[in-house]
Amino acid sequence: MKKEYLYTPGPVTVPQEVLLKLAEPMYHHRTPRFREMFAEVTQKLKTVFRTENDLLTFTSSGTGAMEASFVNFLSPGDKVITVNGGKFGERWTNLAKTYGVEFDEITLEWGTAPNPDDIAKKLADDPSIKAVYTELTETSTGTVYDIEAIGKVVAATDAILVVDAVSGIGADDIHVDAWNVDICVAGSQKAFMIPPGLAFLSISEKAWKLAETSKIPKFYFDVKKAKKSIANNDTTFTPAHTLIGALNVSLSMIIDEGVDAVIARHAKLADAVRAGALALGLTLYSSSPSNALTAIVFDGIDAEQLRKHLKAEGISVAGGQNEAKGKIIRVAMMGYANEADVMNALSVLERSLNKMGVEIEPGKSLAAAQASLMK
Amino acid sequence: MKKEYLYTPGPVTVPQEVLLKLAEPMYHHRTPRFREMFAEVTQKLKTVFRTENDLLTFTSSGTGAMEASFVNFLSPGDKVITVNGGKFGERWTNLAKTYGVEFDEITLEWGTAPNPDDIAKKLADDPSIKAVYTELTETSTGTVYDIEAIGKVVAATDAILVVDAVSGIGADDIHVDAWNVDICVAGSQKAFMIPPGLAFLSISEKAWKLAETSKIPKFYFDVKKAKKSIANNDTTFTPAHTLIGALNVSLSMIIDEGVDAVIARHAKLADAVRAGALALGLTLYSSSPSNALTAIVFDGIDAEQLRKHLKAEGISVAGGQNEAKGKIIRVAMMGYANEADVMNALSVLERSLNKMGVEIEPGKSLAAAQASLMK
Repeated sequence: MKKEYLYTPGPVTVPQEVLLKLAEPMYHHRTPRFREMFAEVTQKLKTVFRTENDLLTFTSSGTGAMEASFVNFLSPGDKVITVNGGKFGERWTNLAKTYGVEFDEITLEWGTAPNPDDIAKKLADDPSIKAVYTELTETSTGTVYDIEAIGKVVAATDAILVVDAVSGIGADDIHVDAWNVDICVAGSQKAFMIPPGLAFLSISEKAWKLAETSKIPKFYFDVKKAKKSIANNDTTFTPAHTLIGALNVSLSMIIDEGVDAVIARHAKLADAVRAGALALGLTLYSSSPSNALTAIVFDGIDAEQLRKHLKAEGISVAGGQNEAKGKIIRVAMMGYANEADVMNALSVLERSLNKMGVEIEPGKSLAAAQASLMK
Repeated sequence: MKKEYLYTPGPVTVPQEVLLKLAEPMYHHRTPRFREMFAEVTQKLKTVFRTENDLLTFTSSGTGAMEASFVNFLSPGDKVITVNGGKFGERWTNLAKTYGVEFDEITLEWGTAPNPDDIAKKLADDPSIKAVYTELTETSTGTVYDIEAIGKVVAATDAILVVDAVSGIGADDIHVDAWNVDICVAGSQKAFMIPPGLAFLSISEKAWKLAETSKIPKFYFDVKKAKKSIANNDTTFTPAHTLIGALNVSLSMIIDEGVDAVIARHAKLADAVRAGALALGLTLYSSSPSNALTAIVFDGIDAEQLRKHLKAEGISVAGGQNEAKGKIIRVAMMGYANEADVMNALSVLERSLNKMGVEIEPGKSLAAAQASLMK
């Protein structure tokens, strides 16, 4: 008997009641049955996004919604700011390169968050800047950005603020309307607790105005067509409607718990993981650690080797990417996670380090995590 | 007790063993487990496509793969032929309009197939034409096109042949390599018998050469990036990997039955449906009827009203679109369908027409279908 535990920053464990929804008999999507369900899902997504803006669903990975947030709002030659603090922020810059958009890239040391003042300065220096593209949570480094502060800065200008919250939303706090986020991008396989295949984006009035002038061509990811379709609770092209049905179940779980309570649970579990890691003398990779995942640095220990030991005990975590490869592991208590998962992850971590010859005081990280949970 | 039967031209009934696969615990996609499975799926898809060309999978509806077959191979100002015989052929023309590609559109009367000679003439008249975009099966009219003949015509030129086989493949015959189809596009929710969310395309050497010169920008649907990824049995962006796992099961069912046998079964069932409809004095909408679905014309009967009667008895079929709305129903025996489904559909059709005041000799269509099945 070997139990498997998925502590990767997406995909995450899908609750049994959601999995069973996926096993229901097939039905057609151009029906009142689908439209009524999709209307519910859209409303519930708005509750999690904390927005009254339009909210669109595409059948794609999160990157599809990133592309939608780019091609529908810009024209070749437009200028944008991109915040590149890791693999996912870098994607904004790559989108700009692909679509002939000029970019002023804020390149961050991995594991750090952007200074909102730097964004303010760039926007003041060049009022022609059309948009600021940033992460909520940079998954490659486990870093959360101060979107509330960035939102204040951008709202004072003509530019729109576009936030990739794919791996952050539902774990790290975001208030789309209150924080002036014009476009917020999300994906299904993270805190939403369903398999990959759906992407979402919210669009403010300010962003819709910018869309009027956009000249980059688009077809599958056309948000204007999608807006017309969703007015009838429908999608322009065939949706992955069984995933949307599963999402309806998981969103009910989130809303029954309460969005604030879900965020608080993520904060509590992430705190406990961090306390456990620090108790073992390990350090955190990020100076602004996210609730969605914790990146832990292993000096003098091959983190990829450690991952293999964890995997042998049934625990899947992510490794480091690019410059962080072999140096860190990324542990996510995301979505369907509780205190048992924290204890499980830390206890296997202790035993794995012990197997690798590291001197470990048995239970030290567990005691620290427990103290954190008792706070 | 009311049983539901899905006889729409996609989505189709998903076999129980495939549904249960979707209810399995979540796992991570950047793992040997996924890559080994994805390698199998790609190989099995090639078997169904009857191709040794590259075969790529995208997380999107079929339209996403249509977009991929367009934006990766053309540049603004290029000229193409589009075959528009209904709602789906029209999509090729709309793609051309969106991406600034010149198009010479062959507009067909709905329900008819293109004459390969017309395509040959256009290609001879203008050797600068880069590609011919057509359907295998035009779903809005239930019409199958002679791709083998069109393939011969296009292969003799520098143009590539791109075939939308989304609702045709696995029901209507197509031999991608033998018939010189440079790009073949397909989707998951048709004869592949899984839910919507995945799209596929095969790409020939001739098409890859054309891709070298393409200047339309692309990101999510970039086939060159996808080709690099699939060399490691991976995808560029997070795939809907649980759907790919389900596809592995349904593809095994198809290959165990045999691709030729699957096509023959579709032909046999479609023949029986047609025989039943003709026995009731009804006519077929298409002069080149597809095995994937049968479009039946109802003169003097409101086809949308009839659909409601069928639905009340648990049977879902598609109605007509655009000019065919209210005039036809489209009945698909696609994927997981057998003789019982034919008998069920025709018997409910007889009873529904009877309820609508049409004089029906009880069992007449059933006898005709039975005779067809006994042939």
